[in-house]
Amino acid sequence: MAKLERGLVQVYTGNGKGKTTAAFGLALRAIGRGLKVYVIQFIKGGFDYGELYIVDKLPNLKLKAFGRGRFIKGKPSQEDVKLAEEALLLAEKIIKGGEYDIVVLDEVNVALNLKLIGLDKVLELIKSKPKHVELVLTGRYAPNEVLETADLVTEMKEIKHPYNAGYRARRGIEF
Amino acid sequence: MAKLERGLVQVYTGNGKGKTTAAFGLALRAIGRGLKVYVIQFIKGGFDYGELYIVDKLPNLKLKAFGRGRFIKGKPSQEDVKLAEEALLLAEKIIKGGEYDIVVLDEVNVALNLKLIGLDKVLELIKSKPKHVELVLTGRYAPNEVLETADLVTEMKEIKHPYNAGYRARRGIEF
Repeated sequence: MAKLERGLVQVYTGNGKGKTTAAFGLALRAIGRGLKVYVIQFIKGGFDYGELYIVDKLPNLKLKAFGRGRFIKGKPSQEDVKLAEEALLLAEKIIKGGEYDIVVLDEVNVALNLKLIGLDKVLELIKSKPKHVELVLTGRYAPNEVLETADLVTEMKEIKHPYNAGYRARRGIEF
Repeated sequence: MAKLERGLVQVYTGNGKGKTTAAFGLALRAIGRGLKVYVIQFIKGGFDYGELYIVDKLPNLKLKAFGRGRFIKGKPSQEDVKLAEEALLLAEKIIKGGEYDIVVLDEVNVALNLKLIGLDKVLELIKSKPKHVELVLTGRYAPNEVLETADLVTEMKEIKHPYNAGYRARRGIEF
């Protein structure tokens, strides 16, 4: 049963740390209230993220990742496009199904920026969401059209980053 | 046993949504890796946040909140100062103890801004942390001195917020 009177459209974008983790923190808060959350990850997948080891143990939180375990550099392959399309199809099904109170489309902005999926389709999906479903879109390079249609937009802005000082990603923190 | 070779100092600040939730998302990722996380909340507490209902069920995640269940408006009371000092004492104990891989000082920047605790003490605490401990400081108004000493700083910048359009905080999403 729907628990939110009105679901909004949230966007976390920008070049700073904390976009995906903010979405997971939101998921944690929501399931603490008995809400149901579905996280669909574009591009990611196959890669070993720390959160994957705990998600299975949490009630009311589902996650499915559609990616090839690596960042896409240069021109995306047909396989990249196919996986992103599959992610979008699942997103449509889950959002329109209305069973989940919150649907997170993790890195969907990057998928849009790489033209793995069409902007029109995503805008249409946002427009057609059931009123009680909260939609969370993450990833840098959120297109202006997505920002315009969103209710809540936060830009995670990198002010200082240790990678610039030669650090490498650390297990348990960055992944 | 310490699992991080080198812990850094992270700051999440700015007027946008996602600072505390990013810290909780990071905690989720970390405990997925078997790291131990202690979240100490300044100012917050007594108030009914969704995440509190799930934290108890998670392994290796501890949370303690020091606040009076309301936002501080105007001049802070002696009680506000006392609670913030208690939070800082616990922070010192936990950080120096070195048992926890990640220590989150949630809203500590706001406590600094309200002068509930002294900037010198917090800078001293940051400086004296064991090498393997990751320190995460959240809250708007992070002082420049804290930003300078941090390794990683993200500003959560509000681009658009539904409160401005008359929405109210929603159970399971905003709290």
